[in-house]
Amino acid sequence: MDDAATEILEGTHRALYTHGYTDLTLEHIAAETTMSKATIHYYFDSKANLFTAYLEYLYDRYVEQIASVPDDRPRERLQSLLDVLLTTSDAGPNGKFRRAMLEVRAQAPYDDAIRTRLEKFDRFLYDELRSIIANGVDEDMFDEHVDPELTTEFLTAAISGAHTRHVAVDYPMDRLHEAARRYVDTQLVDETPEVIH
Amino acid sequence: MDDAATEILEGTHRALYTHGYTDLTLEHIAAETTMSKATIHYYFDSKANLFTAYLEYLYDRYVEQIASVPDDRPRERLQSLLDVLLTTSDAGPNGKFRRAMLEVRAQAPYDDAIRTRLEKFDRFLYDELRSIIANGVDEDMFDEHVDPELTTEFLTAAISGAHTRHVAVDYPMDRLHEAARRYVDTQLVDETPEVIH
Repeated sequence: MDDAATEILEGTHRALYTHGYTDLTLEHIAAETTMSKATIHYYFDSKANLFTAYLEYLYDRYVEQIASVPDDRPRERLQSLLDVLLTTSDAGPNGKFRRAMLEVRAQAPYDDAIRTRLEKFDRFLYDELRSIIANGVDEDMFDEHVDPELTTEFLTAAISGAHTRHVAVDYPMDRLHEAARRYVDTQLVDETPEVIH
Repeated sequence: MDDAATEILEGTHRALYTHGYTDLTLEHIAAETTMSKATIHYYFDSKANLFTAYLEYLYDRYVEQIASVPDDRPRERLQSLLDVLLTTSDAGPNGKFRRAMLEVRAQAPYDDAIRTRLEKFDRFLYDELRSIIANGVDEDMFDEHVDPELTTEFLTAAISGAHTRHVAVDYPMDRLHEAARRYVDTQLVDETPEVIH
């Protein structure tokens, strides 16, 4: 991707958290770049195509963010991931970005291109968590009765729900973060006390 | 509430799942009733006021639905509630209604009246689950180490996330339903095996 395209996608990001998704226009995006609407049109022939490219750009950043979490032992890696995913930082543009992304999610049922991209985020997180948990069970660090698929299902839904509740009803995420930490430490980690004879 | 007002709110419900929230107009609502736009205006002086009244009407139905779940022992009541909350029924208007409600949720950060009403739904479910779980711990049916607040936090988030994922990325809820059932049966219920001497 050349520099101009990258500049347009970065401008889309700023325009999105400033104006929200529903009200987003090409004018807003152009105002966040050094380019004209015509130049943006040259790179992306419709707002829909630009937004699809933006979601792919966002997906690459998401994958990088998850990959940057230290590849530690399963328990520690899971906790570090929860730290990244469930830490509330509404300072600066973060809170506005989350609001805009909930709008995008609400649009997904009506828009195949958006839904297909959001499915990639969902699938990526699911696969990542499942692989860590399966690994923990295989290496006898997690309880052998843990079912990696069902546990991942539960964690993925809880993380998604924490985001929606935080944005929609202004509910803090730190309690869920604590609940998820404790779930990992008490329900997944194999801490069968040794029997003393 | 008189019959005309009830008819308008029921019409709002049908118009909402037919047209979605973003595109909803008073014309759509009037078309779902025997009344004119002018009559609807007489009862509710703005679309915003009508929608707020509609969310309160919906809340009362939600409370009734939860209250209709048999008041059984904690484990059974919790499982029955999960059956109600996590059963996918997209037949008829249900699926469209869920899509529209995700739009309403995405609107909440920008609209105090909507957010305040959605908070009531969230709070009601949280309190209901917390009371069942606390009850189960008090009556020694659930493990004494279960923390009712944190457990409720986790369950509420998972239920909310299951709905969002189902609507936004078309993800089935039945796996989460199974995961939640198993969570209740293996993590909450006190099944310490008796020690045989």
